[in-house]
Amino acid sequence: MSNSFGKLFKLSTFGESHGKAMGGIIDGCPAGLQLNFEAIQIELDRRKPGQSKIVTQRKEPDQVEFLSGIFEGKTTGTSIGFIIKNTNQKSKDYSDIKETFRPSHADFTYNKKYGFRDYRGGGRSSARETANWIVAGAIAKQLLAKIKINAFTSSVGNIFLEKPYQDLNFNLIESNVIRCPDESYAKKMIQHIQEIKKQGDTVGGTITCVAQNIPIGLGEPIFDKLHARLGNAMLSINAVKGFEYGSGFCGAKMKGSKHNDAFNSDGSTKTNLSGGIQGGISNGMDIYFRVAFKPVATLLQKYDTIDKNGKPTEVQGKGRHDPCVVPRAVPIVEALTAIVLADFYLLNKTSKI
Amino acid sequence: MSNSFGKLFKLSTFGESHGKAMGGIIDGCPAGLQLNFEAIQIELDRRKPGQSKIVTQRKEPDQVEFLSGIFEGKTTGTSIGFIIKNTNQKSKDYSDIKETFRPSHADFTYNKKYGFRDYRGGGRSSARETANWIVAGAIAKQLLAKIKINAFTSSVGNIFLEKPYQDLNFNLIESNVIRCPDESYAKKMIQHIQEIKKQGDTVGGTITCVAQNIPIGLGEPIFDKLHARLGNAMLSINAVKGFEYGSGFCGAKMKGSKHNDAFNSDGSTKTNLSGGIQGGISNGMDIYFRVAFKPVATLLQKYDTIDKNGKPTEVQGKGRHDPCVVPRAVPIVEALTAIVLADFYLLNKTSKI
Amino acid sequence: MSNSFGKLFKLSTFGESHGKAMGGIIDGCPAGLQLNFEAIQIELDRRKPGQSKIVTQRKEPDQVEFLSGIFEGKTTGTSIGFIIKNTNQKSKDYSDIKETFRPSHADFTYNKKYGFRDYRGGGRSSARETANWIVAGAIAKQLLAKIKINAFTSSVGNIFLEKPYQDLNFNLIESNVIRCPDESYAKKMIQHIQEIKKQGDTVGGTITCVAQNIPIGLGEPIFDKLHARLGNAMLSINAVKGFEYGSGFCGAKMKGSKHNDAFNSDGSTKTNLSGGIQGGISNGMDIYFRVAFKPVATLLQKYDTIDKNGKPTEVQGKGRHDPCVVPRAVPIVEALTAIVLADFYLLNKTSKI
Amino acid sequence: MSNSFGKLFKLSTFGESHGKAMGGIIDGCPAGLQLNFEAIQIELDRRKPGQSKIVTQRKEPDQVEFLSGIFEGKTTGTSIGFIIKNTNQKSKDYSDIKETFRPSHADFTYNKKYGFRDYRGGGRSSARETANWIVAGAIAKQLLAKIKINAFTSSVGNIFLEKPYQDLNFNLIESNVIRCPDESYAKKMIQHIQEIKKQGDTVGGTITCVAQNIPIGLGEPIFDKLHARLGNAMLSINAVKGFEYGSGFCGAKMKGSKHNDAFNSDGSTKTNLSGGIQGGISNGMDIYFRVAFKPVATLLQKYDTIDKNGKPTEVQGKGRHDPCVVPRAVPIVEALTAIVLADFYLLNKTSKI
Repeated sequence: MSNSFGKLFKLSTFGESHGKAMGGIIDGCPAGLQLNFEAIQIELDRRKPGQSKIVTQRKEPDQVEFLSGIFEGKTTGTSIGFIIKNTNQKSKDYSDIKETFRPSHADFTYNKKYGFRDYRGGGRSSARETANWIVAGAIAKQLLAKIKINAFTSSVGNIFLEKPYQDLNFNLIESNVIRCPDESYAKKMIQHIQEIKKQGDTVGGTITCVAQNIPIGLGEPIFDKLHARLGNAMLSINAVKGFEYGSGFCGAKMKGSKHNDAFNSDGSTKTNLSGGIQGGISNGMDIYFRVAFKPVATLLQKYDTIDKNGKPTEVQGKGRHDPCVVPRAVPIVEALTAIVLADFYLLNKTSKI
Repeated sequence: MSNSFGKLFKLSTFGESHGKAMGGIIDGCPAGLQLNFEAIQIELDRRKPGQSKIVTQRKEPDQVEFLSGIFEGKTTGTSIGFIIKNTNQKSKDYSDIKETFRPSHADFTYNKKYGFRDYRGGGRSSARETANWIVAGAIAKQLLAKIKINAFTSSVGNIFLEKPYQDLNFNLIESNVIRCPDESYAKKMIQHIQEIKKQGDTVGGTITCVAQNIPIGLGEPIFDKLHARLGNAMLSINAVKGFEYGSGFCGAKMKGSKHNDAFNSDGSTKTNLSGGIQGGISNGMDIYFRVAFKPVATLLQKYDTIDKNGKPTEVQGKGRHDPCVVPRAVPIVEALTAIVLADFYLLNKTSKI
Repeated sequence: MSNSFGKLFKLSTFGESHGKAMGGIIDGCPAGLQLNFEAIQIELDRRKPGQSKIVTQRKEPDQVEFLSGIFEGKTTGTSIGFIIKNTNQKSKDYSDIKETFRPSHADFTYNKKYGFRDYRGGGRSSARETANWIVAGAIAKQLLAKIKINAFTSSVGNIFLEKPYQDLNFNLIESNVIRCPDESYAKKMIQHIQEIKKQGDTVGGTITCVAQNIPIGLGEPIFDKLHARLGNAMLSINAVKGFEYGSGFCGAKMKGSKHNDAFNSDGSTKTNLSGGIQGGISNGMDIYFRVAFKPVATLLQKYDTIDKNGKPTEVQGKGRHDPCVVPRAVPIVEALTAIVLADFYLLNKTSKI
Repeated sequence: MSNSFGKLFKLSTFGESHGKAMGGIIDGCPAGLQLNFEAIQIELDRRKPGQSKIVTQRKEPDQVEFLSGIFEGKTTGTSIGFIIKNTNQKSKDYSDIKETFRPSHADFTYNKKYGFRDYRGGGRSSARETANWIVAGAIAKQLLAKIKINAFTSSVGNIFLEKPYQDLNFNLIESNVIRCPDESYAKKMIQHIQEIKKQGDTVGGTITCVAQNIPIGLGEPIFDKLHARLGNAMLSINAVKGFEYGSGFCGAKMKGSKHNDAFNSDGSTKTNLSGGIQGGISNGMDIYFRVAFKPVATLLQKYDTIDKNGKPTEVQGKGRHDPCVVPRAVPIVEALTAIVLADFYLLNKTSKI
């Protein structure tokens, strides 16, 4: 019962990396939304592997097939079922990882928790699950047509995009394979990943996300504060180790006299260290936050580990893994942001009589 | 319906800062738990205001009164109702803040979302709510008697406790008013807060929490990963701006070859950059994470703001506010950690046939 | 986690019959509802014991005390906490039932499920819990001011009120102690209960409830059909054994050609065997249903039972028990109906874009 | 968010009668359950149309395809996704019902609630949805291997099977097309349905369900009483108008001295008017209940109705509809019973420390 996310706009999912199909159910999407199916597929294509040299070369078409909840192009108010077939699962030999726990993967913990595991390609713990989220997120984006959500790569390893987001042109995010809207930083990041890849190694990074044109009032205190749910969502993405919004960890070093956001007479604020959220509720200013991704655990080099009996053994990742997961995670961050905002948008319809 | 937290071990709460009482319902606590009421009160006392010169001088006894769910000292399996009376609400004149939106408070957003607000002392958005969490957390701690949860102040402003937690003696946490288990750093932090206070200013900080003796298997992928729920919980605390676990934001700078935690033959790991959680499930190693708190928004100096009609006005905090919220937040971080772990402990009872 | 009811308009409760207090939290009530506190108390008074000779002579004032969520007489949108103190719990000797399982009570099952039980007055299984529901229901009624909800006693033992509800004057419901809006039947029912009472016996009965002026569209298929949630609610009331709506069990004997409700041109129907609900959604016609209550298990005569070690023993109810629970259950049925409708009223706000 | 049922063993579903596929997600099934796939298909075959002359002659193979959550024949503890393709949706002309509201169907209410509707074959309101429930129920039955659940037709129209269930041989349920375990009554019921069918009419009936070998302790007061959740489940089935358990509506006529179930020394009871549930918790005795089904609304004769503009028009059902839904609903009642019991079985694992 932990494969569902959201209260009114609710996504439930299933699927293992190398099973027949991934899929999900979107429940609670209001009726009458005219869907742009092409826009949904574009989001899936942004996430899919094999897009460029700095991501995995696996080829998965990731074609979503809607099975219900849509009639004559519009949502009907009933549950939207969909599947994404796993066309590229090679019937390969898994004997190497079948008995082995890969370090910093979920092999050990799944095995202990459930007694055994679907070892093919990580099973349910695979990031392939995020394709499901993209589908729901793409629909949420269409429900929230006025809200603009842009995520981008803000660091790779020690290379940090040192510009405030206000100085960036979000239209450039898709102009390079690292999804960094500054060409010069993008080049450096790409070059760094290519070097890391040559070493058979991987590297972490961060994604910044900015949501704009937000209605005032989204977020439901006490336990569904807007930023708490955004944090929950982001921390659900594979490899995420941290989340901060507004001033974030930097804010913890500051004095109150510098940190407070003074009001303009229209209720907007002169600064926005609050990150668009006060008391857990959106105040109409830009929401922005940053998400930290650890380096991918699968290395293209040999390293020591144990088998399921505790005996020492070795593993080595094979050809088709991401040296850096961050560029492919950009649309995932956006999708989850959209899902969270859609849920709060609906919840907020009952806040007042 | 957003005043509840948890799935099986579930806390629902109510209460405004200056209403008659705070309180809550703990639902799903297993029957037969012999409660230590003194231990619960000790936790409340750790959170309460007026403990030292570096926190607010308000006096609130924060006495919890249990109304149900306990019989002959033991939990009965039925819902545990409790209240904490608000004895110290001065019938003071609120006309100064009644019409005013204080910067970086929840005044503006509550007003917009709900159409009006209980302006007395912040109403529902007051951190006084966290007293409720302490009660539930103290019971969760008793349910999880073998697990050790220790939080402590790891930074105030720019003063960072630069020691790995393994080098600290958690028994010293309560030995000073800042709750930092290193005397020398504690002194510096206290001194810094006293200076800030003299300026009529406030300052942020961070809390580190370490949970030990964790059973393997806690956490419920995909959407209830252990760290995602911890993050959600921590981001629910007033003034929190960020959460990271294990390697956190630092991990985003690292290479995979340095970040992976190699196994020992017993399934434990040689390093623990994973922070005790892999694939969203505890692996039996220490869980540790860090929480960022912004500086308190209420300053003891005059500053500009607007009233509810958008007209410029001034506010000034009065005598009894915290210059730094961090020391009082230490038991809150522990309480929420215990609640999250208790919930997963119960959920894990059904993971296998 | 089973002490909560509702999705958006959500009631969580606590309290044992002989504990310090009953109480609850109403979460999700929209902000800005001006409350009529007298109307709430009137509903509590309708349920309270000691109202007449045909119900228990216990005296409980059942005064509700609101602790939060209301400011200047209006709901604030935050959680509404309330308590009802148990003023009349005699510090009596429970040794007779402490070790005994009363037949057809919850003593045996609570003991087995939880390992022990609060034996004072039935503990959590006492119908005193329903006082909490009355409070939430009274607020729900005010939220749904246009909807009219009327329940009444439609049978006691074998005495059935054999009139269609359309021929009854609901204003007469409160004109007699049995709450039957037909004076002649009321007399017969009261007389019957008095005879039963003299025998030291008890008797069952049914309540019919009619909800009118219902907006079209309430109810959320597939698993939250309006009648399924009403049924769930009614079956939650102590002593209830059955629920039917519209044509109910009689409908199961009918042919389709007689059962179908033909439309008028305005979408209303000529007959209403559907009971105002089609496909789980209200169609604007009157909703009506019937609830069956078994006779009270506590008899004022001696009867055989076992103690907790399985040894034969005897019990006998003492002075203050209801010979027939039905008249006091009338406001409870109404309260739960109001809660269910309020929840669906809010949920329906997001059915369409 | 109303297409899910259950708390720990949770089913979420999607699908329209004439869409591409029905399907669902079973979340929370413990890992390690060896599945008997043939047994699942047998249950689907019991429900499918075209089994006999007294049910619809539509042919739907109703083959379930599992997409995830199962590995090497065993459940993995992750979510189980499945689909049932709609192979028999004729690309027929729906213009007759497209603009028409059929009496006592969900056409009118869906249209009003959602603004428009998928009119093909009833869309989401079709009983075809129940095929999804069969799949989840069949797995729940396997999880609860020791519990025996038997439902059967106990009345059709005015023909009532007038024998206590203890006198019936449940092995005979599947021996006739009406699913009545008494041959003589079965014949009468079948004959009656054939006559009704010739008239182009339909008829209602009731199903009785008996669950045996129940562990003591299932059910979660206050709002998840075992019988309340069973009632909720049964009332979710298309065409159901009533639910009663144990003594049911008959119990409402009785005196307490006759109704109470006296204990044996082992805690079992001499009678079982309680229906195996006391205080909302199973007491180990047989659980039995009865469900009322109205006659199918679609008649094979002409009858008056309105179109969506309120203009009078006529409809007539075409060849492939059930004259009596009851025999096909027997496995559905069993499936939902299994789902409810599985959920409580898991929930009960945390009732005591």
